[in-house]
Amino acid sequence: MSPINFSIQKKIPNALGRAGILTTPHGSIETPAFVVVGTKASVKALSPEQVASLGAQVVLANTYHLYLEPGDLRVKKAGGLHNFMNWHGPTMTDSGGFQAFSLGAAFGTNVSKIAKGEKNGESFSEENGEDIALAKIDEDGVTFRSHLDGSEHRFTPERSIEIQHNIGADIIFAFDECTSPKAPRAYQEEATERTHRWAKRCLDFHLEAQPPSGRKQALFGIVQGGRFRDLREESARIISQMKSGDRGFDGFGIGGSFDKEDMNTAVGWVNALLPKDKPRHLLGIGEPSDLFGGIENGIDLFDCVAPTRMARNGTLYTHDGRMNILNAQYREDFSPIEKECRCYTCAHYTRAYVAHLFRAKEMFAATLASIHNLFFIVNLVKKIRRSIVDNNFELYKKNFLNNYYKTDAIV
Amino acid sequence: MSPINFSIQKKIPNALGRAGILTTPHGSIETPAFVVVGTKASVKALSPEQVASLGAQVVLANTYHLYLEPGDLRVKKAGGLHNFMNWHGPTMTDSGGFQAFSLGAAFGTNVSKIAKGEKNGESFSEENGEDIALAKIDEDGVTFRSHLDGSEHRFTPERSIEIQHNIGADIIFAFDECTSPKAPRAYQEEATERTHRWAKRCLDFHLEAQPPSGRKQALFGIVQGGRFRDLREESARIISQMKSGDRGFDGFGIGGSFDKEDMNTAVGWVNALLPKDKPRHLLGIGEPSDLFGGIENGIDLFDCVAPTRMARNGTLYTHDGRMNILNAQYREDFSPIEKECRCYTCAHYTRAYVAHLFRAKEMFAATLASIHNLFFIVNLVKKIRRSIVDNNFELYKKNFLNNYYKTDAIV
Repeated sequence: MSPINFSIQKKIPNALGRAGILTTPHGSIETPAFVVVGTKASVKALSPEQVASLGAQVVLANTYHLYLEPGDLRVKKAGGLHNFMNWHGPTMTDSGGFQAFSLGAAFGTNVSKIAKGEKNGESFSEENGEDIALAKIDEDGVTFRSHLDGSEHRFTPERSIEIQHNIGADIIFAFDECTSPKAPRAYQEEATERTHRWAKRCLDFHLEAQPPSGRKQALFGIVQGGRFRDLREESARIISQMKSGDRGFDGFGIGGSFDKEDMNTAVGWVNALLPKDKPRHLLGIGEPSDLFGGIENGIDLFDCVAPTRMARNGTLYTHDGRMNILNAQYREDFSPIEKECRCYTCAHYTRAYVAHLFRAKEMFAATLASIHNLFFIVNLVKKIRRSIVDNNFELYKKNFLNNYYKTDAIV
Repeated sequence: MSPINFSIQKKIPNALGRAGILTTPHGSIETPAFVVVGTKASVKALSPEQVASLGAQVVLANTYHLYLEPGDLRVKKAGGLHNFMNWHGPTMTDSGGFQAFSLGAAFGTNVSKIAKGEKNGESFSEENGEDIALAKIDEDGVTFRSHLDGSEHRFTPERSIEIQHNIGADIIFAFDECTSPKAPRAYQEEATERTHRWAKRCLDFHLEAQPPSGRKQALFGIVQGGRFRDLREESARIISQMKSGDRGFDGFGIGGSFDKEDMNTAVGWVNALLPKDKPRHLLGIGEPSDLFGGIENGIDLFDCVAPTRMARNGTLYTHDGRMNILNAQYREDFSPIEKECRCYTCAHYTRAYVAHLFRAKEMFAATLASIHNLFFIVNLVKKIRRSIVDNNFELYKKNFLNNYYKTDAIV
């Protein structure tokens, strides 16, 4: 039996989108839902109580980061991720592959470079016009260097699952290769096929380590294939039909680099083929227009660092588009960030105060801005869900997007 | 009528110390009390709710910092400090003199130097063996350069009070000259006399601007005099007897640089002479042994940045002395910082988690460590108060200090 349960409550007419409820061992998630990112077992600048207060239902931590610091075995000894970080709601971890590939430091003497491109199974940085390998992929796994100290490490599909077992999140992901959108067709094919072989090894290892009676973690398979329709569709078919014994994945992730059009193309192609009764997570996406597009095309879960990262830079969401709180005009603006907003920040503080905290380099600036941005995005997805339940998705989408994007000029 | 009221509940037998209640326009403070520092209208890394939860009764902001950023008039336009920072309990501001003198940047081309010494009414830094003036004191006030951008500014007694009126704290301080303990006797005499003339100007200006019926802010006079008994006693007499019309200061601050012995000498000399029915604030002191010594010698209020500054460096208070959470041994220590501690941090997190957050450079590290350290110090002063009320001060002091200082070796 799967440790999670997914039920669909309502569908968007003539589209792939739906509102559902995903039940995990640590509570239920009303979907579609925005998953808050707590990279290193902490949602940056926030307490778990602040995260819960702003409406977040689920937190995703990064396997690559926790493996390096404090180490997955320390998280296990602490009683798992929930106890370690004092977040007792649903949790997820990614597979670590994306960060190993993109953050892993250069092989060789220079360990400060970050991947800029990719070819033939290696990620590269440029130095003096020469490509420097950052991470080496072979059939068995990925060898990479820590971005912290340059030490060499290796992830395989089995190792990624073992680390995720130690961390102990409710939902974990299969180890995949996230290719660059610039990669040529031939490499995309090769990487997608390798991702499928790795997915099978993850599924086998996971079910062997966690037999049916004792399974506490759900495993999501990941669909890749870049922007090629035939590769995406083949990947969706293979991953959704993959079995170890008589059991398959508990849900699905859709990986890759996406832009706005991909919501209607790549995401739609995949979700048209994935089984309707299992949840689907679009990895690393969080722009408002992408949330509407992804949900309409059948996505149930999103995670993205953008709301908190932008918040720490002083960029704040409003229904009229983004604003930069560091603009001089806000120094004497004693209204809240957004008048109608019901977040903690807008209930108690003015634009002038938030602007002051940023100028004074006070840490509380990041806290207040992160609360506002996460509240905005988490509740935007909740309102989209409500519109689906109320049979009102198209109108809500039109109104929101018209308003949000008409005034981009104030950014 | 004074905007504050102070009543003594219990005294330490054969000593100057007492437990009292200080009522302000924004609520009461049980004294002795530790005043939490919110330098730039934010207690670093904490929300006002977190500050209140850890037991803090009163917050002190710095006039110098708020004058420079966001500017005192902006705080006034925001409805004053309480509204601006969303702290609706009692507040204080210092006079700005100490920071103008110690943080104010060098006159001349180099604006990065901080005062290292002082002579003849100027503070100095050394550069290439030459002294560089940082702030210039004359009979009328202090001219200094902003540590932020090198711009020139001037504080006079009247200007300091005017700025503190704009900020709007419940308790404000007279503008004084805080001398270096290295200053020679002759300069100490000169500075103390000037501080007295400035005190009178502050009192006159304050009472003129806030007539009896409309006074919302209490003004504390400051006693100086360095380590010279006659100067300290003369300063205590002059400041406590100072009047504008028929009205004097609402309370007193004791300024200067202090070490452990000064609690029994300088602080005791002054408090033996100050009127018993008004509150006394020892500026910038917060080491546990100094809290016991200061309270025994008649201090009602302390403020200090040490608990939060040390917290941000990973140094944590325990009843067995300080610990450095970055020591390797804590990485696998799944006990709380202190087993018996009832703070939020110790209730929910382990040493291993706090150590991880520091190593991972997560902002939440500063939050958790600051909550613990402030809880420790705020509640230490509360427990000292309780021991006075229970007629048990000497025993509590002996037990606490024996335990705290016996194990300094683990720092």
